[in-house]
Amino acid sequence: MSYQTYFENRREQHLNELKEWLSIPSISAISQHKPDVNRAAQWLADTLKRAGLENVSINETKGHPIVYADHLHAPGKPTILVYGHYDVQPVDPLNLWQTPPFEPDVRDGKLFARGATDDKGQVFLHIKAVEAILAEEKELPVNIKFCIEGEEEVSSPNLPIYLEQHQDKLAADAVLISDTSLIEKGKPAISTGLRGLCSLELTINTANTDLHSGSFGGGVPNALHAIVTLLNSLHDVEGRVAVEGFYDDVAPLSPEMHAEFEKQQFNEEKLKQDLGLTSLFGEPGYTFVERVGARPTLEINGLYGGFQGEGSKTVIPKEAHAKITCRLVANQNPHDILEKIERHLKANVPTGAVLTFYPGEKAFAFNIDPSQPMLQKAADAYEKVYGTRALFTKDGGSIPIVETLSRVLKAPAVLMGFGLPDENLHAPNEHFNLENFDKGLLTIVEYLRSL
Amino acid sequence: MSYQTYFENRREQHLNELKEWLSIPSISAISQHKPDVNRAAQWLADTLKRAGLENVSINETKGHPIVYADHLHAPGKPTILVYGHYDVQPVDPLNLWQTPPFEPDVRDGKLFARGATDDKGQVFLHIKAVEAILAEEKELPVNIKFCIEGEEEVSSPNLPIYLEQHQDKLAADAVLISDTSLIEKGKPAISTGLRGLCSLELTINTANTDLHSGSFGGGVPNALHAIVTLLNSLHDVEGRVAVEGFYDDVAPLSPEMHAEFEKQQFNEEKLKQDLGLTSLFGEPGYTFVERVGARPTLEINGLYGGFQGEGSKTVIPKEAHAKITCRLVANQNPHDILEKIERHLKANVPTGAVLTFYPGEKAFAFNIDPSQPMLQKAADAYEKVYGTRALFTKDGGSIPIVETLSRVLKAPAVLMGFGLPDENLHAPNEHFNLENFDKGLLTIVEYLRSL
Repeated sequence: MSYQTYFENRREQHLNELKEWLSIPSISAISQHKPDVNRAAQWLADTLKRAGLENVSINETKGHPIVYADHLHAPGKPTILVYGHYDVQPVDPLNLWQTPPFEPDVRDGKLFARGATDDKGQVFLHIKAVEAILAEEKELPVNIKFCIEGEEEVSSPNLPIYLEQHQDKLAADAVLISDTSLIEKGKPAISTGLRGLCSLELTINTANTDLHSGSFGGGVPNALHAIVTLLNSLHDVEGRVAVEGFYDDVAPLSPEMHAEFEKQQFNEEKLKQDLGLTSLFGEPGYTFVERVGARPTLEINGLYGGFQGEGSKTVIPKEAHAKITCRLVANQNPHDILEKIERHLKANVPTGAVLTFYPGEKAFAFNIDPSQPMLQKAADAYEKVYGTRALFTKDGGSIPIVETLSRVLKAPAVLMGFGLPDENLHAPNEHFNLENFDKGLLTIVEYLRSL
Repeated sequence: MSYQTYFENRREQHLNELKEWLSIPSISAISQHKPDVNRAAQWLADTLKRAGLENVSINETKGHPIVYADHLHAPGKPTILVYGHYDVQPVDPLNLWQTPPFEPDVRDGKLFARGATDDKGQVFLHIKAVEAILAEEKELPVNIKFCIEGEEEVSSPNLPIYLEQHQDKLAADAVLISDTSLIEKGKPAISTGLRGLCSLELTINTANTDLHSGSFGGGVPNALHAIVTLLNSLHDVEGRVAVEGFYDDVAPLSPEMHAEFEKQQFNEEKLKQDLGLTSLFGEPGYTFVERVGARPTLEINGLYGGFQGEGSKTVIPKEAHAKITCRLVANQNPHDILEKIERHLKANVPTGAVLTFYPGEKAFAFNIDPSQPMLQKAADAYEKVYGTRALFTKDGGSIPIVETLSRVLKAPAVLMGFGLPDENLHAPNEHFNLENFDKGLLTIVEYLRSL
């Protein structure tokens, strides 16, 4: 029987199983859902066992548990570690969901539920692909390990500890991850880059109390004037980051990478129209996909101070606040970048203002050479199933744990995603297109058999 | 009997009367207090009648009524129009009041209540001064008119209309106003300048939705970057307003004015300490009192956009907002200044940003020559009662109706205030120092008899 027929015969049953898992509200960020998170881990462990995996264990951490399983009966063949997560994002605002987030619903060829595409649906594909090969061939063409965590949506605080402690147990020739997207319907992609991240907050203080602009205006510092001057110093007029040394470690865009970006044939005009932009904006000399995929950025995410109510209030605010995140690329070190930003801010504080700097998150960028055989074979597998070879892309987003997995396990990470960019992950009406559910199963089987 | 003895004998009775008025919560800004505002107007009219004033009337407007009264039996003598207001500010936050705002309480020689100094207490002095002269001398040394409004705390929307319609009835040789402060205890002042005002709001839009900084960061405009750049262009690095033509109509500081400011012997070091400033800040070449009293200013009062919650959010905000007010001096026209600011903003909108400009309030500055005899006689009256001659000051604040009264009635405005700068007007625990209650009564009697 072909795998296509195998999966067609079991589609109803598979979808029902997945719906069961999606019905469990395993929201890792909300502590009252702790029992649900545990239930989702248990469901996963049971399902892995039923699929034929061995050594299934639920490993407690200081947070939510990590589920492990393996099947290591292919001596001489590569070992693949499948990473994913069974926790999901919160669901607010609930009123914008067309059907309840934990009552999975299929309509228009899409499965709607929180976690449908991010990431229960995509993890499920790997379990069912392994189960299918075992059912059809009684053995696997590779050694396989599953490491599925319950804290990805809260920045994976405990997985790095688990990785360090179990390096031998988790050792693999490649880490296989399905938590990303195709470029668009029918256009598969393998991400070979994810941006790193660092975040910070800053406060400007100028006085011990808000002051009346009649009695003091023009004679004392204004925290909003100071923060505006300080923040404006972070970029030059064309949009380059003006922090000294910010670009020092950025790998220049090679002609090969430039060619790879060109292949995407990204439509900048359509983007402008879709987002209502009068103009794109950013570092001169790069296209939109290059700016987002291969160049770092410093973005002010929030800014506030003084009076925000209706009407006017003649106040000179005593304090002002800003929140900033950077997306980093290539060899940039988030610790070093935060230091450089802090140095820049301190050197540019206006007269009469006092700066307080709060460093935040730090994550390295992930990059992999697309000529890696493990990646080339993944592109082949997509080609066989989708009829078109996967493109190697650079994503602007960050999945910090990918760099950690790849670095600690010294193994290439293969980002073989089956989502679509418009599937509302982290938003109401998250869904998973069933075309990619079907093709994803076949692509994973194809990939594992090709190794 | 001396006037001092007269007032001493009636102090208890006078305070009880004032307390009655202060018990009426005549908050003009809150519509449910409309009946209280009317009651306060009625109380005022009754009290003016009892004091011996004639032609007492309560004049309805589109908002709250204006109370008028006169006593015109001094042919050949000047006519004085007393302006003041019987409405009060809201009282939030109520929990910070040591005694309830509408249950007047005397402690430490101060009368605590909303309106005690702003402005019922000060208006009351004029009524009792007139009553005293009539009681002691059977006639007044001047012709006197009272015009007391109920909308000063909501920017006097209807008084200008009333003034235009009743110019003949209200005609006077001077407008006498007690709604300002001494410099400090024992140091009387007559304000010869009040700054004008104009306000505006602006919005910056860059996209039709907030964007994820992973997918778009570095490639699209950020509304916060745009507003920071735009707002930073409004001042030069030393604190001058950088809007073209902003200072064009500002009268330069004459040596006489400079000397008058010097006389105040203002302690800048103490101000820095009191307010917790690391440094004063403002237009180079001027002292603090000169910057506030004789120079215009442009202040950002509020600024907001993007994420303000706890933690970080990797968002590129689609919009940002700012609120701005200017204090204007001398010959600056608020309409003209708003046009210049709008022109400046439009010329400096960064690439990819769309500006929306909302003009707001517009009020002219008020200025009067201190050599005016009506002002010199006021300074003499203070000297007789306080033992020290009133200084002529320029206030940084704005009382827009003063310029309107003076312009429409073509009469000098005499700002003879009896408050103190720390009496918490517009704040919890507003109070009126009874030393100035007593001396205020005598100073007004002295002034009226000197004309």
